Amino acid sequence: MLSKAGKKRARLPCGFFDKKADDLRVASKIITAIREVYELYGFEPVETPLIEYTDMLGKFLPDSGCPNAGVFSFRDDDEQWLSLRYDLTAPLARYVAENFERLPKPYRSYRVGWVFRNEKPGPGRFRQFLQFDADTVNTDNVISDSEICMMAADTLESLGLRQSDYTIRVNNRKVWDGVMEMVGLNGERQHDKRLTTLRAIDKLDKFGIEGVASLLGKGRLDESGAFTKGSELDAVTIRRIINFVAAGASTGAATLENLRKAIGDSSKGHEGLAELEEMYALFLATGYENRVKIDPSVIRGLEYYTGPVFEVELLLDIVNEDGRRVVFGSVGGGGRYDGLVSRFRSKPVPATGFSMGVSRLITALTNLGKLNKQKNAGPVIILLMDRDLEALTRYQHMVSDLRKQGIRAEIYVGNAGLKAQMKYADRRGAPCVVIQGSAERSAGTVEIKNMIEGIRLSQKIKDNAIWRKQSPAQITVNENQMVQEIKRILAIK
Amino acid sequence: MLSKAGKKRARLPCGFFDKKADDLRVASKIITAIREVYELYGFEPVETPLIEYTDMLGKFLPDSGCPNAGVFSFRDDDEQWLSLRYDLTAPLARYVAENFERLPKPYRSYRVGWVFRNEKPGPGRFRQFLQFDADTVNTDNVISDSEICMMAADTLESLGLRQSDYTIRVNNRKVWDGVMEMVGLNGERQHDKRLTTLRAIDKLDKFGIEGVASLLGKGRLDESGAFTKGSELDAVTIRRIINFVAAGASTGAATLENLRKAIGDSSKGHEGLAELEEMYALFLATGYENRVKIDPSVIRGLEYYTGPVFEVELLLDIVNEDGRRVVFGSVGGGGRYDGLVSRFRSKPVPATGFSMGVSRLITALTNLGKLNKQKNAGPVIILLMDRDLEALTRYQHMVSDLRKQGIRAEIYVGNAGLKAQMKYADRRGAPCVVIQGSAERSAGTVEIKNMIEGIRLSQKIKDNAIWRKQSPAQITVNENQMVQEIKRILAIK
Repeated sequence: MLSKAGKKRARLPCGFFDKKADDLRVASKIITAIREVYELYGFEPVETPLIEYTDMLGKFLPDSGCPNAGVFSFRDDDEQWLSLRYDLTAPLARYVAENFERLPKPYRSYRVGWVFRNEKPGPGRFRQFLQFDADTVNTDNVISDSEICMMAADTLESLGLRQSDYTIRVNNRKVWDGVMEMVGLNGERQHDKRLTTLRAIDKLDKFGIEGVASLLGKGRLDESGAFTKGSELDAVTIRRIINFVAAGASTGAATLENLRKAIGDSSKGHEGLAELEEMYALFLATGYENRVKIDPSVIRGLEYYTGPVFEVELLLDIVNEDGRRVVFGSVGGGGRYDGLVSRFRSKPVPATGFSMGVSRLITALTNLGKLNKQKNAGPVIILLMDRDLEALTRYQHMVSDLRKQGIRAEIYVGNAGLKAQMKYADRRGAPCVVIQGSAERSAGTVEIKNMIEGIRLSQKIKDNAIWRKQSPAQITVNENQMVQEIKRILAIK
Repeated sequence: MLSKAGKKRARLPCGFFDKKADDLRVASKIITAIREVYELYGFEPVETPLIEYTDMLGKFLPDSGCPNAGVFSFRDDDEQWLSLRYDLTAPLARYVAENFERLPKPYRSYRVGWVFRNEKPGPGRFRQFLQFDADTVNTDNVISDSEICMMAADTLESLGLRQSDYTIRVNNRKVWDGVMEMVGLNGERQHDKRLTTLRAIDKLDKFGIEGVASLLGKGRLDESGAFTKGSELDAVTIRRIINFVAAGASTGAATLENLRKAIGDSSKGHEGLAELEEMYALFLATGYENRVKIDPSVIRGLEYYTGPVFEVELLLDIVNEDGRRVVFGSVGGGGRYDGLVSRFRSKPVPATGFSMGVSRLITALTNLGKLNKQKNAGPVIILLMDRDLEALTRYQHMVSDLRKQGIRAEIYVGNAGLKAQMKYADRRGAPCVVIQGSAERSAGTVEIKNMIEGIRLSQKIKDNAIWRKQSPAQITVNENQMVQEIKRILAIK
C-alpha cells in the first residue's frame, strides 16, 4: 500500500491498537491494584508463553484437523500447528498438567497477559486484549468458588467501586442441567434444541421475560420486522423455564427456594442447588450477600463450565455506539471447569477460576470518573542554547543533578531554535525550562521559566531580545541554586 | 500426541518457557528499575500490538512476496500477511509515522514487551523474549546518541552493577563505511565480500586478532579440523582492516587518533569520526569515559544502522553450556537508524535507539548474585479443620482480618486431612498456620503454629492426638489476639 510519494502508508490491522502513555499508566495502576488483592488472597503468579500447540488449547475444528478460524494459527517447522492463546485458562490447564507433581495443591494461580481472538472486530471489540485471571486447581470444594467471588468483589472495591456499582451474579450449571432434564431437553439428541434454548435465555437482558418466552416458543418479531425463529417448545415447558429464569428474588434465600421448586426431583439439579446454598450461606455469614447474588439467569457461554458460574456486572449506565444509555454489563466472569486439566491426566483435576477483562474495566472506571488520567509530570527541559562542549557539559550536569533528586529532566536534543524548543516543552507538559546562554554561563547563573504561568505570556513576544528583557514568569538564580529553585516550583520538600 | 491412558501429553513448543513466581518477581523488579531510569530521563511509554502487517515490519523476503521464515506469520481474513513483531524498533517506526503530527519532536519513547523469533532455539536462546527499548526520533543531533549510552550506563548501575562489571562499547557505522571504502570493498558489487568481511571481524571476541586475520585471508582451521573459508583479501587490505579493528587504545583520545589514521581520506569515515569525537568529548566532560568506550571492533549485525552503534557488554565470567568460563557478553545494544521511519514519510526522520535484553540481564544479574530470589512471604494458612458454616464463618473472618493488615492469608480450600494441609503450608512457604477445631472454637481461641520452627518437629509426630498435646512451636491465643500474635511472628510493627 503506497502513498502518492511512493511511500508505504503506516497502518495497523483492524482490531489492534497502540496504547499511549496515559493509557499505560492507568492500566499499570489497575493491574497493580488487582495483583495486590490476589497476592493478599495467597495466589501465586505464573506466566505462560503467548504461543501454544493448537491441540493444547483444544482449538482444532472437529473432523477437519484444522485450527478453529477464531484463533490465530500457523505451522511450526515440523508442521505442527501453533496458535496464539485465546484465553488464560487453557494454557493454565497445560501448565498444571506439565508440573502437576511439583505444585502445591490446591494450586492457587494468577496470570495477567495478552490474549488474541481472530474475530471480526467491532466497536469496543479488540483482537488483542488483556486479561487478569485467578484460578484454584485440584479441589472441588465450593469454598474455593465462594472465595473467588469474594475476591472479585474485593478487587472491584480496591479499584474504588462502591457496592452499589456492581454485582457478582452467581449460578450453577448443574442447576441448569437439572432444569433441562426436567423439561426433557437433556441428552445428546437434544443438543441443538438445548443450545437454542440457552441462547434464548441469554437474551434476557436485551428482550426481557416476554421476549425470551417468544424465543422459546414460535419465535420473535423485532421492531425492524425481522423474525427470529424460536425453539418451538410447548407452553408447559416454556412456563417451567421462565419460572426458573425469573426465580431471582429479593433475597438469596427466596431465590434458592424458588429454584428448589423449579428443578423438581432432578438429582443433578439438587447437587447444584446444594452447592449454591453452601456458597450463599457463606456470603451471608461474611457480609457479602449484597455484593454476590444468586441469579438463575446467568449462563456463561463457554462449554467447559461444570458447576458454579460467575458473572461480574457493572451497574453503571453508559452511552453505547447508537447513543442509547445502556447498562455497562460484564467486565469478567468465570466458573468451575472440572474437565480441562483432566484432558491431560488419568485422574480428575477439578478447578475453578475467574477472568477479569482489564480493558473493559479501564473503560468502565474511566466512565465512572474513578480514574484520574495518570498524567505524569512532564520533564524539566534544559534548553539547548549552545552546542559547544563547555555548554553541553554544564547542561549535562544540570540534568544529572535534577535526576539525582528524582526529578524528570532532559536536555532538548533536537536542532530547532528557541521558539520551537519552548513549544516542545509545552507539548511535553514541562513544569519549567532552564535557560543558560553564554551570558548566563559567564555569570554562573541560569534562567528558570515557570511554564504554567509563562507559556501564556510567551505567545505575545516574538523578539528574542525583548523576551530576554521582559522575562515573563522567569527568574534568574545562581547555577548551584537551580535544583533548589526547581524543587520549590514543583512543590517538592 | 497421546499417552498410554489415551490422554494428551501436556507440552510446550521448543524455545518457549513458562515463568514461575520467583522469576516473575525478579523480572518485575528489573523492569521497574529500568522504567524508573527511563522516566527520569524524560522518555515516555508507548505500547504497540504484538501483531503487525508483515510489510510494516519490513519482513518480506525479497522477490518472493513471502514473509521471512525468521518471523511467525499468518494471513488475515483479507489475505494480507500478518506477523508477530520481531523487535520493538520496526513497530515504533510504524507508530511514529502514523502519529507524526501529534507527537512532540524529538520524540522520546520507551517500550517494554515480548518479541518473537521463529528460529531454531538453542541453549539460552528463546523464540519469545522480553525487550526493553528506548528511542529518540526525529533528531540527528549526536547528543541524543550520547545520552542513550549514558542512560544505559545509569540503568545498569541502578540494577546494582559496578563500573567494573560492564562497558558500553561505541562505534560508528560511517567509520566502518570509510574503512570499506578505503580498502575498495564499498558499492553494491562488493556486497557479499563486505558481508563475509564484517562477519569475520564480528568473531574477534571468539578467535582473537589472529583468527580474524585468517578469516579475512584464505580461511581458518579450527581445533576440530573444520575449515571456514575466508574473504580472500590481499595482505595489504587485511593489514589495514586489522589496524582498524585493533585501533582500540587505553584512552578514547588515543583510539580516536588511531582511527583517524585508519580511515585515510574517506569523507564518510571522517563524518563518523567527527561524531565519535563529539560523543567522546561529552563522555569525558561528564565523567562517563570509563563506562562508555570507543571501540572500533563494534559492528552490530543489523543492516539498518547508519551512524553511532552501541553494544552493552557485561564483563563477568560465566560457565557456558560446554562447561568453559566465558565472558557473559552482550545484554543489549542499539544505534542510529536514519532510514526506518522515512520508509513511510517523504522527509527524512533520523532516529537513534537502544534495546535491553531483559531475559539476558536477569541471567547475568543472577550470576553476579545481584538478585536475591524475590521470594514473597508465603501466605498464612488457616487450616480447614471443620466445614460447618459456623467454622467457615470464623475462618473467613480470620483471613479477612489478616488481609486488612496487609498480611497474605488464605483458608485451605482443598479436601485433605491435617497432615496434608501441613505439608501444603510447608510447600507454600507459610510463615505460620492457624488451627481452630471445635474445642478452640468453643473456647474462643486459636492455635498458631510457627512453621519455621515447627515443620522440623512435626516430621516426628504421626498421631493427631499426640501432636495436639505436645504442641511443638505452637501457642494458643484468644481469637481476637490472633492478628497481633501473627504480626509478632512476622516481625511487623
